[in-house]
Amino acid sequence: MENKSILIKDVTILGGELKKGSVLIENDRITAINDKLNSKDADEIINGDKKVLMPGLINTHTHIMMTLMRGLADDLPIDIWLKEHMWPLEAHLNGDHGYAGTLLGCLEMIKSGTTTFNDMYFFMEHAAKAVEEAGIRSVLSHGMIDLFDEEKRKNEFKKSIKLIKNCHNTADGRVKVAFGPHTPYTCSTELLEEVRKKADQYGVQIHIHVSETQKEVDQIIESHEKRPFEYLNDIGFLGEDVVAAHAVWLSDDEIKIIKENDVKISHNPTSNMKLASGISPVSKLIKSGICVSLGTDGAASNNNLDMIEEMKIASLLQKVHKLSPTALNASKVFEMSTINGAKALKLEDEIGSIEVGKKADLVLLDMKSVNLTPYRHPVSHLVYAANGSNVNTVICNGEILMKNKEVLTLEESAVIELAENESEDLLSKA
Amino acid sequence: MENKSILIKDVTILGGELKKGSVLIENDRITAINDKLNSKDADEIINGDKKVLMPGLINTHTHIMMTLMRGLADDLPIDIWLKEHMWPLEAHLNGDHGYAGTLLGCLEMIKSGTTTFNDMYFFMEHAAKAVEEAGIRSVLSHGMIDLFDEEKRKNEFKKSIKLIKNCHNTADGRVKVAFGPHTPYTCSTELLEEVRKKADQYGVQIHIHVSETQKEVDQIIESHEKRPFEYLNDIGFLGEDVVAAHAVWLSDDEIKIIKENDVKISHNPTSNMKLASGISPVSKLIKSGICVSLGTDGAASNNNLDMIEEMKIASLLQKVHKLSPTALNASKVFEMSTINGAKALKLEDEIGSIEVGKKADLVLLDMKSVNLTPYRHPVSHLVYAANGSNVNTVICNGEILMKNKEVLTLEESAVIELAENESEDLLSKA
Repeated sequence: MENKSILIKDVTILGGELKKGSVLIENDRITAINDKLNSKDADEIINGDKKVLMPGLINTHTHIMMTLMRGLADDLPIDIWLKEHMWPLEAHLNGDHGYAGTLLGCLEMIKSGTTTFNDMYFFMEHAAKAVEEAGIRSVLSHGMIDLFDEEKRKNEFKKSIKLIKNCHNTADGRVKVAFGPHTPYTCSTELLEEVRKKADQYGVQIHIHVSETQKEVDQIIESHEKRPFEYLNDIGFLGEDVVAAHAVWLSDDEIKIIKENDVKISHNPTSNMKLASGISPVSKLIKSGICVSLGTDGAASNNNLDMIEEMKIASLLQKVHKLSPTALNASKVFEMSTINGAKALKLEDEIGSIEVGKKADLVLLDMKSVNLTPYRHPVSHLVYAANGSNVNTVICNGEILMKNKEVLTLEESAVIELAENESEDLLSKA
Repeated sequence: MENKSILIKDVTILGGELKKGSVLIENDRITAINDKLNSKDADEIINGDKKVLMPGLINTHTHIMMTLMRGLADDLPIDIWLKEHMWPLEAHLNGDHGYAGTLLGCLEMIKSGTTTFNDMYFFMEHAAKAVEEAGIRSVLSHGMIDLFDEEKRKNEFKKSIKLIKNCHNTADGRVKVAFGPHTPYTCSTELLEEVRKKADQYGVQIHIHVSETQKEVDQIIESHEKRPFEYLNDIGFLGEDVVAAHAVWLSDDEIKIIKENDVKISHNPTSNMKLASGISPVSKLIKSGICVSLGTDGAASNNNLDMIEEMKIASLLQKVHKLSPTALNASKVFEMSTINGAKALKLEDEIGSIEVGKKADLVLLDMKSVNLTPYRHPVSHLVYAANGSNVNTVICNGEILMKNKEVLTLEESAVIELAENESEDLLSKA
């Protein structure tokens, strides 16, 4: 990375309390925030007038290369969607597809203000390469599924550990690796126990789907005579390093278990609505002091990766679910998408807020936009009125990835063309 | 309007079945659709490559000038929102505010692909002026509230009839006027009965809010010993010319009444979620053969006017409500936003689909967009992956309102500035 400094001048700064000031970035970090900084202090100046500066959004559950499957299979029950559409395609997926899908997803995330994502899928070395080129930040995990078969299990660990060795803490620290056991119903107890041991050994996170549908909860009850989080607790799997995606169907006892183990929940409202999985009791989780962050899930069940849209849908869903318009207010959902996302990934000392010493992962929103007029509290506009297209400039790790809506790290038309070709190739094979 | 012809060449055409072809517009109407048209046939050529042509979206319930109140009061119970925030502001609203708010709303609608809206509010002559300038289509009604007072009632009819005389069928027929009795709980039986008579006499539509909240249903039951649609039926108010917005809390008997009277329902999912009003039984209404269309409601309870976003939220909400991923599929929600909107406004012979002889109210979507890649069925992408920013070109009544994302009828920065000033003025008075 080049050694340089950027000054964002006279901008309204979001996160914590609202304030006006200038932000100095040197190399990859924020080194000063005050109103006395001036243009001589930096190599590059960004005028913050009529703009709002927020932390880069953090998407804590997605399968980024599923952008290639966007719009392929809608309005279907989740098991048909999985078994008849997604799994047959995934069986033919290769690294080239994965690279192209990840580039496309990174481009979409940059354009809509996301600078960090937490992923679980296949061909993750190829994903890491795309993430490195795109300039954003990610925690990647190989999706482990053993279907209770020892041979498969060994192979999944081989792949996961290889990924850790090849990619963890690469790309100037922007790429991290986690273990990604798929679910308690597709992974054996042996796999889950081994994941816990190896995660401690390698010092990496765990990313898992839990209790997305009522059906899978019933399945776990049938095999283990316990609900999923009870089972995971009893085998010693849970911990503060676990990000559990979905968590839709929860008993009060399970909520206690989640809290006691400081498990991080990734809420995925659009996917849960589109696949009709159900409504996660997010208000209750938050009231219990649990760290809830936000994720888009993959583009095949959303069908975009726009975290700004996801924030609105998260808030609306809780309000109508609780029949309370005060449920999940704009500030809370903004927190979920920023600092809570950072906590989920154990990166809260580095990202998730705008503070001196933190990494410069920053997004400038155009407030002089028709859909954001009149100018009001930016958090309200961001959550309820904006969408990804209001993002103007994106910085990650001190590097400008998009400036005035032009992405600098990737060539948009080339990425679109590559994704079209690889998607066609994937479909022709399946 | 200038006398001219436009050829949209080699485009994918949505609505009914998907087909590829060219569309010729002469003056205000579509005069040919086929694949033999060529560039010599028209004054202006629009290249349809990588684009999809759809009917202009129809927003059947909004209060357009409430764009001025966007983001002013979020996360509040509906009665506090109304009584402590909206009504005090409305008491100070004047025609200048209304004109500015309508211009801003029209600009937002054009940019997000809406060409027709159904409105109820105040200062509607000022709204009509803004609609005329913006070039879009609307059905405007003065919001009538008598609070059971005869003097007020007379005054509301005076205003409504004046609006009909001044504005109905103006702006080359783009502006129509309807009666807009506010609700059954803010209007007397006498007012509602008189509206029915006068609507028949003047041959105009009726636009009303019904059963948005459980509380108002209880109120009507207390005063009339009947549920709202039963009461409206008994006083002979209902008919095929009535657009009832919200319709959240309905008994099975009321659904029968709606069907028997061919009342048109405007579903407003975002507003119903944000204000925590409840979930309208849309799947059941559609199964009963009722015409359900879609509306954003005002920007103060949404907080934008993006019908593309509204389509996604409508579909997602029914799916999770019914716990069925097949509920309200993409085609159905597209129909709600196009031809059903036209039927609601009794304009189905003129707009709502792309057919020879119909008015040229057309929208071109950019399919070569990152969030719409890979190219798939455009209706899926439109409903689940797109947002208003994917709209490229908008035509209404044969006139190009936006071309390649540049609005031609209004000057964007001037409208934003005017709206900021008028909003500030309104706030300073309240």
